[in-house]
Amino acid sequence: MVAVKGSLGAWILSIGNELLIGRVVNTNASWIARKLTFLGIGVRRIIVVPDTIDDIVNEIKRGLQDSRIKIIITTGGLGPTYDDITLEAVSKATNRKLVLYESALEEIRKKYEQANMEMTKEREKMACLPQGSIPLPNPVGIAPGSWLDANGKIVVSLPGVPREMEAIFEGYVMERIKGTSSMVVVECGFKVVGIPESSIAPALEEADKKFAGIYIKSHPKGHETKGPILEIKVLASGSNREEALNKAKGALNLVRERTKDLEGKASEEYCD
Amino acid sequence: MVAVKGSLGAWILSIGNELLIGRVVNTNASWIARKLTFLGIGVRRIIVVPDTIDDIVNEIKRGLQDSRIKIIITTGGLGPTYDDITLEAVSKATNRKLVLYESALEEIRKKYEQANMEMTKEREKMACLPQGSIPLPNPVGIAPGSWLDANGKIVVSLPGVPREMEAIFEGYVMERIKGTSSMVVVECGFKVVGIPESSIAPALEEADKKFAGIYIKSHPKGHETKGPILEIKVLASGSNREEALNKAKGALNLVRERTKDLEGKASEEYCD
Repeated sequence: MVAVKGSLGAWILSIGNELLIGRVVNTNASWIARKLTFLGIGVRRIIVVPDTIDDIVNEIKRGLQDSRIKIIITTGGLGPTYDDITLEAVSKATNRKLVLYESALEEIRKKYEQANMEMTKEREKMACLPQGSIPLPNPVGIAPGSWLDANGKIVVSLPGVPREMEAIFEGYVMERIKGTSSMVVVECGFKVVGIPESSIAPALEEADKKFAGIYIKSHPKGHETKGPILEIKVLASGSNREEALNKAKGALNLVRERTKDLEGKASEEYCD
Repeated sequence: MVAVKGSLGAWILSIGNELLIGRVVNTNASWIARKLTFLGIGVRRIIVVPDTIDDIVNEIKRGLQDSRIKIIITTGGLGPTYDDITLEAVSKATNRKLVLYESALEEIRKKYEQANMEMTKEREKMACLPQGSIPLPNPVGIAPGSWLDANGKIVVSLPGVPREMEAIFEGYVMERIKGTSSMVVVECGFKVVGIPESSIAPALEEADKKFAGIYIKSHPKGHETKGPILEIKVLASGSNREEALNKAKGALNLVRERTKDLEGKASEEYCD
């Protein structure tokens, strides 16, 4: 994990039976992982847990006890239904009370009022957050998110509906996290045609050993022996963009040399 | 988790940094989760771990120690590159040696020979499996999978390339697992227009309490107050299809009644 060396680590906890029965693909986790990676935060685990209180509490506690981890981000389980129990679990795991936030309640009440709907206990539940947490406004849905500083770690809870999760993350989480890491991360790559993954493997190992703070990987797109196509991608971190780019390009150049030796074709390189 | 009540549990362990940096969406896990669910196996966790030996070993051990778990399925890390270390980790976690399987080596050698390629140590590595495991042929790629019976539990290791994983699962894993569960699982659902999720919530809770061995859930597709659309889905298990269908339809009928009371529109129901 490139970004982890000397920097902060994170866990993503995806909550919901719908993920465990394979009804929903966990695009939320990869979206968040990508954002965190480029913020200089290394994701160490993505864990999908069922909507049962003990499972959620146990995994949060485990994350909080891991010395490499600074941030846990949960998704799902913030809504009005009986099995939406994420914030109850965060409260238990951090030994806090779940309390009704008047400000959050007011926001929720307003949204229902605009639609001529009254408050019910299911709707009120969405305003109950772990004591001490900061409610994160939900610009596209109802349930607010939650940011909790707990014993030097951070637990962020976001809804499971992708557009709500993304809006809260981009609007209220990104800026707060930016301040915690000073790393710059870049990604570069090129395509190689005509060389099996097993032949290029030693070059990747060599590059990994030569450049600190990179993550280089071959992604097979064709067939190992019948028409091999490889996407070579490198992620590199540094204290500024130039340093990161130099590492990434250095690693790719080494692989490019070996590609020539093996008589394969390499495409132009690209960087994000 | 519907399928878990009284039945077998599984963990899916997805191995690979590319998942943790958000480069690849974990479609393998949801594909396997769906298959296991309909085989009557309840998935209790999906865990994504980096390509580091300690992380993989620790999570496998944790799964093996969980009394609710019978099967651990790993994906990724079976290839020829230096960071493909899954089978080394499975060996360590189960206190076995990693041994060269002559039969697997022969298959691999044949595939490279057909392409006029020689064996190298990177290619040979793919024939090293935990002692006592059964190699699972890879009909579309090179690296074989592995089936290991270890202390009354099963550890299945599959490649990370989706079409290779799917081919091995369907060709060699499915039949073996079928024998371990006698449950039948069905899924039914309908669409509800005009009722917010928070209003239908009590009906879902009621259905969940009334019918044992079901998992019922509302999936919001519209906006809670501005044009709510809900997909109501129920997963039900039984000792035969009729019993499972009866439960699923009973639960949906209860929700349908409440939908009428709340003056919402429900579509025809469908079952898989």
